[in-house]
Amino acid sequence: MRFVVSLINEYDPGPFPEDFDRRVIQLASNENPYPPHQEVISTLKNSVMEINRYPSPYYRKLKNLISEYLGVDSSNIAVSNGASDLLRLVTDLFIEPFDRVFIPMPSYTLYALFSMLREAQVVTKVFEGYRLDGCYDRGKLAFLCSPNNPTGNVIDRAVIEEFLENFDYVVVDEAYSEFAGTSVVDLINHYENLIVIRSFSKFFGLAGMRVGYAIAHENVARAIEKIRNPFSISTLAYKAAIAALENVDYYRKIAGLIVMERDRIAKRLGKMFYVYESHANFLLVRHEVGNLADRLMERGILVRDVTGLEGLEGPHFRVSVGRKHENDAFLSAVEEIT
Amino acid sequence: MRFVVSLINEYDPGPFPEDFDRRVIQLASNENPYPPHQEVISTLKNSVMEINRYPSPYYRKLKNLISEYLGVDSSNIAVSNGASDLLRLVTDLFIEPFDRVFIPMPSYTLYALFSMLREAQVVTKVFEGYRLDGCYDRGKLAFLCSPNNPTGNVIDRAVIEEFLENFDYVVVDEAYSEFAGTSVVDLINHYENLIVIRSFSKFFGLAGMRVGYAIAHENVARAIEKIRNPFSISTLAYKAAIAALENVDYYRKIAGLIVMERDRIAKRLGKMFYVYESHANFLLVRHEVGNLADRLMERGILVRDVTGLEGLEGPHFRVSVGRKHENDAFLSAVEEIT
Repeated sequence: MRFVVSLINEYDPGPFPEDFDRRVIQLASNENPYPPHQEVISTLKNSVMEINRYPSPYYRKLKNLISEYLGVDSSNIAVSNGASDLLRLVTDLFIEPFDRVFIPMPSYTLYALFSMLREAQVVTKVFEGYRLDGCYDRGKLAFLCSPNNPTGNVIDRAVIEEFLENFDYVVVDEAYSEFAGTSVVDLINHYENLIVIRSFSKFFGLAGMRVGYAIAHENVARAIEKIRNPFSISTLAYKAAIAALENVDYYRKIAGLIVMERDRIAKRLGKMFYVYESHANFLLVRHEVGNLADRLMERGILVRDVTGLEGLEGPHFRVSVGRKHENDAFLSAVEEIT
Repeated sequence: MRFVVSLINEYDPGPFPEDFDRRVIQLASNENPYPPHQEVISTLKNSVMEINRYPSPYYRKLKNLISEYLGVDSSNIAVSNGASDLLRLVTDLFIEPFDRVFIPMPSYTLYALFSMLREAQVVTKVFEGYRLDGCYDRGKLAFLCSPNNPTGNVIDRAVIEEFLENFDYVVVDEAYSEFAGTSVVDLINHYENLIVIRSFSKFFGLAGMRVGYAIAHENVARAIEKIRNPFSISTLAYKAAIAALENVDYYRKIAGLIVMERDRIAKRLGKMFYVYESHANFLLVRHEVGNLADRLMERGILVRDVTGLEGLEGPHFRVSVGRKHENDAFLSAVEEIT
């Protein structure tokens, strides 16, 4: 077995409802708590008899709809099995052993895991609250996340451009982009070294289906398509993503509700803790309560304990914005504990 | 971009119904032509409201059922997004640049593609009709396929053991195993270097869902689980695979029908062409008819033209066993053309 495999720590995905005997409120995984659009539901139900067939591996209709959605050419789009698979494919495409990969922290831990698997020289640098004010490094690849997971803030466009000038390739993970209403997708027309990664898991509420995509120069998009698994998106996921894109207005309305709820929760939490300013569908909270995540879990509420993540000083948890009654249950439990 | 990416040829997945304007008979992708079990259908329909949630990334219930199905411990099982993802993960786990990877031919082309991506020294050797009578090489990894795609024959157990003695690791791809009724899964208790790859796409008729698994020593299984994408199997695929395994008798009956149909087709094709003896749900045919696959396509019948695959001399096509009326349409069309 390759030596590097033994060096890599397992990704910690957090707690999941399936792991509990009783009903829990899941606020640990930044999912969209609202039901799918009616057309997504009916499409899935009507497609069940096709699951014995491989999907067309080119996923053309999905790419055409993403192309319309973002105003980019479909030759600039690569799709695969969730944004995480695209992150992996990007490391596969670019990283040679000992290549310098720069990861501002605190951020999403999979960047380092996939880079280590390619034997990169992973360089992390802490920016308090992930407030990047410039690019202070050079190298093969930088992983930026905007809005960032777990801090929730957005990176200034000018800073991203500075990275693009200094790194061979820059990944901007925009999994939560639609909640912020900002994106650098348009920059792919100016920078051949930009790869924007997006997801159907958050805004489009398809976390369980596993559909992600990358927007990049057509040479990069084509290369990702070439090296991914031929049938990396399932037939049902493909159809669900198409139906969701065809009903984007529904998801825009939901995102509006989520943002309103987020700000309401932030206000109440802000009376007890330090709450990071978020442009996503979750909040990062610094606190001083012993075992707060565990004590919430005892009360049937799952949040993500991110204490110990590089770049976070002291106890922190990340809480996803749920439905109103879920958020109320969470807030009451927190108030009860503290 | 890594130089090796430019050296890799795109995988040719064959023709797909979605690429045609009219209804076609799909016999090009070795799918199971029968409908899913009623419980798979109802499970999927009843789970549609859960697609906004991530699945538990450990997939424990699926592993427990596979464990019962094959009589191995669940610590010996790793699961991921189709057998192809497991092939990729195995190359990721073991192959360092310049490692010798041995691939008997004619066989499945993804082995070489994934190995090249890891910069392996890929060594192929042609065995006529993929009739392996021993192991004539040594190295880091060998890819065996039994029943083999596209020839359909099974490798002798003794030959596989010879490979296991001579290679650091041996992958045995058993995607079609249930149609042959043979397996070397039990050998994982004797050989720590054996990785058996299996699929839900063929026997269990879930090609569109993307579920595959590997059976290996627990250290290997654990390592695969560690480096795969955390949520590589979708919520619906996870549930469909569970429901399918819980109704294995239904799929056994179907496999019986497929094998009967296969032998019926083989007999009729045998009057016109050389047909390789198959233990899978497809037949490989050597012929001398110009553009046979294209001419079948014009008649709305898709078969896989495998002419030019290393190890096949002269024109060949591979045809999947369909439902009776599909096979009849195929046979009539062939008889009409020749």
